[in-house]
Amino acid sequence: MKIKKYLLALLLCSSAFLMTGSLGAQEMPDAAGAVEAVADAIPFQEGYDAFMATPEAAFFTISNIWLLIAAALVFIMHLGFATVESGLGQSKNTVNILFKNVFIICMGLITYALWGFNAMYPGFAEGSAGVFAMGSWFDVAPSVDMMTAAYANYTWYTDFIFQAMFAATAATIVSGAVAERVKLSSFMIFATLLVTFAYPITGSWEWGGGWLNTAFPDAEFVDFAGSSLVHAFGGFAALACVIVLGPRAGKYVDGKIRPILGHSMPLATIGVFMLFLGWFGFNGGSVLSADPYLVSLVFVTTALAAAAGGMGSIFTSWIFLKKPDLSMGLNGILAGLVGITAGADTLTPAAAIAVGLIAGILVVFSIVFFDKIKIDDPVGAISVHGVCGIFGTLAVALFGSAAPFMTQLIGTLSIGAFSFIFSFIVFFILKVTIGVRVSPEEEAEGLDIGEHGQEAYPDFANSTR
Amino acid sequence: MKIKKYLLALLLCSSAFLMTGSLGAQEMPDAAGAVEAVADAIPFQEGYDAFMATPEAAFFTISNIWLLIAAALVFIMHLGFATVESGLGQSKNTVNILFKNVFIICMGLITYALWGFNAMYPGFAEGSAGVFAMGSWFDVAPSVDMMTAAYANYTWYTDFIFQAMFAATAATIVSGAVAERVKLSSFMIFATLLVTFAYPITGSWEWGGGWLNTAFPDAEFVDFAGSSLVHAFGGFAALACVIVLGPRAGKYVDGKIRPILGHSMPLATIGVFMLFLGWFGFNGGSVLSADPYLVSLVFVTTALAAAAGGMGSIFTSWIFLKKPDLSMGLNGILAGLVGITAGADTLTPAAAIAVGLIAGILVVFSIVFFDKIKIDDPVGAISVHGVCGIFGTLAVALFGSAAPFMTQLIGTLSIGAFSFIFSFIVFFILKVTIGVRVSPEEEAEGLDIGEHGQEAYPDFANSTR
Amino acid sequence: MKIKKYLLALLLCSSAFLMTGSLGAQEMPDAAGAVEAVADAIPFQEGYDAFMATPEAAFFTISNIWLLIAAALVFIMHLGFATVESGLGQSKNTVNILFKNVFIICMGLITYALWGFNAMYPGFAEGSAGVFAMGSWFDVAPSVDMMTAAYANYTWYTDFIFQAMFAATAATIVSGAVAERVKLSSFMIFATLLVTFAYPITGSWEWGGGWLNTAFPDAEFVDFAGSSLVHAFGGFAALACVIVLGPRAGKYVDGKIRPILGHSMPLATIGVFMLFLGWFGFNGGSVLSADPYLVSLVFVTTALAAAAGGMGSIFTSWIFLKKPDLSMGLNGILAGLVGITAGADTLTPAAAIAVGLIAGILVVFSIVFFDKIKIDDPVGAISVHGVCGIFGTLAVALFGSAAPFMTQLIGTLSIGAFSFIFSFIVFFILKVTIGVRVSPEEEAEGLDIGEHGQEAYPDFANSTR
Repeated sequence: MKIKKYLLALLLCSSAFLMTGSLGAQEMPDAAGAVEAVADAIPFQEGYDAFMATPEAAFFTISNIWLLIAAALVFIMHLGFATVESGLGQSKNTVNILFKNVFIICMGLITYALWGFNAMYPGFAEGSAGVFAMGSWFDVAPSVDMMTAAYANYTWYTDFIFQAMFAATAATIVSGAVAERVKLSSFMIFATLLVTFAYPITGSWEWGGGWLNTAFPDAEFVDFAGSSLVHAFGGFAALACVIVLGPRAGKYVDGKIRPILGHSMPLATIGVFMLFLGWFGFNGGSVLSADPYLVSLVFVTTALAAAAGGMGSIFTSWIFLKKPDLSMGLNGILAGLVGITAGADTLTPAAAIAVGLIAGILVVFSIVFFDKIKIDDPVGAISVHGVCGIFGTLAVALFGSAAPFMTQLIGTLSIGAFSFIFSFIVFFILKVTIGVRVSPEEEAEGLDIGEHGQEAYPDFANSTR
Repeated sequence: MKIKKYLLALLLCSSAFLMTGSLGAQEMPDAAGAVEAVADAIPFQEGYDAFMATPEAAFFTISNIWLLIAAALVFIMHLGFATVESGLGQSKNTVNILFKNVFIICMGLITYALWGFNAMYPGFAEGSAGVFAMGSWFDVAPSVDMMTAAYANYTWYTDFIFQAMFAATAATIVSGAVAERVKLSSFMIFATLLVTFAYPITGSWEWGGGWLNTAFPDAEFVDFAGSSLVHAFGGFAALACVIVLGPRAGKYVDGKIRPILGHSMPLATIGVFMLFLGWFGFNGGSVLSADPYLVSLVFVTTALAAAAGGMGSIFTSWIFLKKPDLSMGLNGILAGLVGITAGADTLTPAAAIAVGLIAGILVVFSIVFFDKIKIDDPVGAISVHGVCGIFGTLAVALFGSAAPFMTQLIGTLSIGAFSFIFSFIVFFILKVTIGVRVSPEEEAEGLDIGEHGQEAYPDFANSTR
Repeated sequence: MKIKKYLLALLLCSSAFLMTGSLGAQEMPDAAGAVEAVADAIPFQEGYDAFMATPEAAFFTISNIWLLIAAALVFIMHLGFATVESGLGQSKNTVNILFKNVFIICMGLITYALWGFNAMYPGFAEGSAGVFAMGSWFDVAPSVDMMTAAYANYTWYTDFIFQAMFAATAATIVSGAVAERVKLSSFMIFATLLVTFAYPITGSWEWGGGWLNTAFPDAEFVDFAGSSLVHAFGGFAALACVIVLGPRAGKYVDGKIRPILGHSMPLATIGVFMLFLGWFGFNGGSVLSADPYLVSLVFVTTALAAAAGGMGSIFTSWIFLKKPDLSMGLNGILAGLVGITAGADTLTPAAAIAVGLIAGILVVFSIVFFDKIKIDDPVGAISVHGVCGIFGTLAVALFGSAAPFMTQLIGTLSIGAFSFIFSFIVFFILKVTIGVRVSPEEEAEGLDIGEHGQEAYPDFANSTR
């Protein structure tokens, strides 16, 4: 079959890539452009032990362990995404949703090792204008410089794993928006291209020292942990895909919006708590050290924004939708978290509450708005990550003084535009070649049977509703 | 409608409060009474950097990171409460239960920032007799004193977020006991008052340096991490509310006890494991530093008490109820955890096993007893938190030598009595004004439809049982 | 009834044991053979405080906190096992599966304190040939030597709790393989004997300084975090039990394999993510310090092997089983994790990907193979832990240079053989005495009703399929 052919090709390419990377690892010149590899006259262990005996090794060791724990916390966000998305989807598409999320984290870690990390932290070559750099296999022979404070407050391996956990997030966001009708193989190809190639490009613009760092002298663009670089990026990729893909069958009929209910609110709630938990690593780890003042401030702003977001959306939905809506409450928490992500280290706790509250209110109206214009997003990913990602980036200027408004606006729109255009083109090409949507019959029957031949809950009879 | 009016009022009040707090933040005098704010002649960053260059910065940085991680672990207990409670409830009330728990953590964090933290750690004013202190917005302009070891082994922000995660717990305990028939709006008002005002009062009696610290010279009351201040407090609030509220319809019919079964044992089990996990932060963080001996002892006593609690309740229920009961096993683990919480840092591992074992046995009989006297507590919260909270406080004296028995008895009863009386009065006033119980029709149909217009599992047909 | 008699006996024995341990704790000589107990002339606190004032206290404190956090992460693996196993089982056996897992962690912690820890870290007596050592109650009066760097990079309590969390894992692995037909009481007795007595024996061979450490001069056996000592041990115990127990009714009918489907894929997915998360503590903590280079390398190799395992099994199952199978993807992640466990600190990231990829491919064929030879393993535990455990141990030699192949082969086969023989004998004795299997009627009706008189999902009608 066709699908198999494409995927076999993908597998073979990956394998070939991997082999090259593995074999070449020892001879490769230092590919991590950020690291000035110096001739290592003394053997590794000796130099490393010497560093570990210095007084500064203590702060380095704490920071390193904190970033590794933060990486583990960001990892668990992938369970959060998987459960939010499957909880808010129908039971007949649950295996498919879980499969996509399992695939994304596996694929994301591997491709970030093979290409992404070195493409994102590039130390841009002359003439590249801070826009694009080539990637490559991330690993080189360990040197003292890369494993001690000479590199950063953490080792190069810690840097990689912390950033790798972030990378797959973009595709996970898209996964939620296109759920319940996207063709599995096409989504897998799209997600691979998005995570491997597109994410490191915009990522490098800011975190890799690219043009967003250099274009505004004395008024640098600020995106602490990725309101734009991760969330708006994912949200606008999601918007592009949903436009290409179209709404689920039966969602908009005769000019009316027919709600399609999620099948398990406990699953969705578990997901949001996991995301909230993981965000302490996402934002707290983005301090990039164990600095007591900054990490504790970030914990406080993150938690208060999330709480205010939940309050904002609970009461907004209560007043305007007449009922205290659980899924709106959950999305409000996520909105608050996305909103504070750009400014978690520079905003005050009071500002964090304001940002979270506004994001929580905003997300309710945004979800209602996208539904009105027939952008069918089963989990509200475009509103939560796209809209609140932009708002959060602007909030750095609106509620603090770390960056000017225009810089923030240019930055976030550039990132969103790149992500939107890249996704639109790639997903459109997939649409006209192998197709991006399952057949109407498969959509009606559910993707679990159609794509996987498996049911999520074989013991329970589905209702006839 | 009426409900909306009350909640709109609550929202507006909160907003007004918030605005005051935000705007006033910069000019406010140092409200955190525990901190001796000194004139900050040098700018913050300079003094902070100077401290971070000292040798003592290492232990401070480790302790601070540990407390932040502990705060994250305590946070995940709220997911534990949400899933235990919804798992042990019926499917028709699941959205309602999840909603309450989502609301509580959001509300708790915000009100603790607005009022609770400064009410609980007050440095009581002259003449207040260590009984009551006013709260206020927690944040002030950062000073070196509050962000370094001059304050504690952690920053003031860390102190806030660690304590804030505890605060909402009290209401969560009540939530379980009143589940499946409580009116949502009334519960939300009650929970807000309990967490915002009542919890910091008893909390300040012991942890804020209040009368429980000063009333017994040379024989101080000891409640390490809150067997009384958190758990018995919540358990007795729950008891008061259940008395006011009455049992669920159909629970006690013609003098017989009709079990109302929980709808998802996996959900309940996930919850207990999450609580067990979170307790390592709850107790381990309460060491208030990274002291290797104490933190590791606390991990050992906590884990062994939980395990012994599980064993105690499994075999007790097997012998007396004839079947090895999973929910009793789960409650036994929680009983052991609540039991060890007061003495986790002073009891030996052998004593911890004894305390856990007894708590695990006790909880089985307590649950049976409350059912006999028609106190309908769907999740066993009164027994787990109330009864075992008192037992755990007394166990500090019975199995160790850190405090005398009478002091422990007076302390735990004072806290339980305050919580009971406060809750009884407030909940009774709510009963006679806006009502605390849903209509019999709504109770029969389920609170998910009645209060939220949502179902937790719309894809699955409920059985007709 | 018979069952009760056996369990009462077990309870009484445990209690007696406990009492002895508790009472004897103070007079007991230093039982932890690894610790050279010296006469403690200065009181504990004074000596401890003196150590904490030294420069080396910083690294000690960080390492100690990291190992405690790692212990908490390993703890959450027990939730992972509980949810994977119940998700892949039928809904009618869910309470039983959850109960077993709750029992195992409780029992495991207690018996490891009473016997296992001191049996595993023995400092073998003269003439014992590094094969067997007696256990005893783990705790003694704290001394400076056992709570500071004189003992290790962590306190003796930390050592205990980190190792205790590992101990119960072996029984959990077996639990999955024998699920859906094993008699509860027999399993509980078997699990208790396996965890208490058998696990510490093979554990001591390598980690306790036993014969695997001394038998191969200059070519030591290497099993970093337990591909053999934990996973192959559990996997081969599972194989022995399944052989004694036989397949589930209806699994192999008329020479055909009839798949028995798991009842909740979200539950299984939650479990695998929890295990993946916990493995960062399992492997990362096994560095036994916070060494920045090693811990970060271990995080990278662990994550990449897991991801490669998932990719390997997803594409293998897609090609050979025709469908992208979620449960194969999940098992592939676990296979990759088990595979890297022996060499996570010595293999390169490229080798980790290769090991994970092969383990992920291997597990698919292994699961198919065991099904062909009518070894009925509902969760694939024998393949994931047994087969990939052996492969992982050999991979240390095949993909790295830390140990020679023959040493690895002898080591892993010795451990697997001991576990298999011990389990076969004990489980066979249980079979011919009290029986190991529920009645055919109970198996058909489900163990939840038969063993526990409880249902996991009483609100939902099971389908008639």
